[in-house]
Amino acid sequence: MKLYDTAGAPNPRRVRIFLAEKGIQVPTEQVDIMSKMAKTDAFTTLNPLQRVPVLELDDGTAISESVAICRYFEEMHPEPPLMGRNAVEKAQVEMWNRRAEFGVFAPVAFAFRHSHPAMSELEVPQVREWAEANRPKVLEAFRFFDQVLSDRQFLAGEMFSIADITLLCAVDFARVPKLGIPEDHANLKRWHAEVSARQSAKA
Amino acid sequence: MKLYDTAGAPNPRRVRIFLAEKGIQVPTEQVDIMSKMAKTDAFTTLNPLQRVPVLELDDGTAISESVAICRYFEEMHPEPPLMGRNAVEKAQVEMWNRRAEFGVFAPVAFAFRHSHPAMSELEVPQVREWAEANRPKVLEAFRFFDQVLSDRQFLAGEMFSIADITLLCAVDFARVPKLGIPEDHANLKRWHAEVSARQSAKA
Repeated sequence: MKLYDTAGAPNPRRVRIFLAEKGIQVPTEQVDIMSKMAKTDAFTTLNPLQRVPVLELDDGTAISESVAICRYFEEMHPEPPLMGRNAVEKAQVEMWNRRAEFGVFAPVAFAFRHSHPAMSELEVPQVREWAEANRPKVLEAFRFFDQVLSDRQFLAGEMFSIADITLLCAVDFARVPKLGIPEDHANLKRWHAEVSARQSAKA
Repeated sequence: MKLYDTAGAPNPRRVRIFLAEKGIQVPTEQVDIMSKMAKTDAFTTLNPLQRVPVLELDDGTAISESVAICRYFEEMHPEPPLMGRNAVEKAQVEMWNRRAEFGVFAPVAFAFRHSHPAMSELEVPQVREWAEANRPKVLEAFRFFDQVLSDRQFLAGEMFSIADITLLCAVDFARVPKLGIPEDHANLKRWHAEVSARQSAKA
């Protein structure tokens, strides 16, 4: 088994934190997505979309998409549960994970990819106006999650889950396009300090 | 239990097809998202993001996000399996479902929401250039899925899954911004004819 990983990229970090929370170690290979490394024939066979992360199983099966890789490990190593323990919890974790993806992760990625000069070859065309349109969407989502976190420790309730991992990676990624948590968002700041203090956040 | 649904909208259709494949009937209430109906206090309490579909359980628990609702039913009614039966299948279905979402569903939604006059109040600001940028992304994804479907009956392999439901709803939604499957995409057209012929596609 091998995990194709890119240090510093936000999506592979989701998988690294997930594995750290599970206490699972997987051999990794670094893929430099900014060079042409993701475009080699060998990597394109693993993931035709040429993106990281990718998990290659011993029989050659390749699984891409961060959450798909996490789901594989959740099924193989259920403890500690990070995607819910029963139907209602699983549905709620899925809901919060998607709200973090659509509300924060995607708008942050758009704000970055459609404005940063380093992305001009990967994101064609770069639409500046779309980058700008996403900045207030991120801030609106920060406000929403600040309210949500006023009555619970973690996004999906009292249990740390993949939804917290997604939001953590998205909030940290937001520093790149210079979108920080506003000072008056006390609940979101409390949550961010707590999840950042977990050992897994270093992964 | 009640499903808040909007006839004609592509996301609620994903849930309706999923339920039809499972043979589950759930009482529904129609929400007119184009009027202010999704903005009422009662509906906002169910889903602060004011979007459909929402599943309300008998104890008042509200689950939004189409795939989260599907996951609830998959756990409660595992047969027929639509999200995979074991770790590898579950990961692969998740991967293909996300590829259909990110590759087709999202670009189609952007092409529609950022250009259609009817969406000018729901999508602020409308970024015309972003709508245009997504049209070739949809066509590129059609090409990708046409190749994928050259060696298998369904997206995730030999078993119909939620990934097929997502792609079907996305391809049909693409008619609104006038993006059809090109004539020479024989595999994608064969797949589309097959999944459209299932009884569930009428849901």
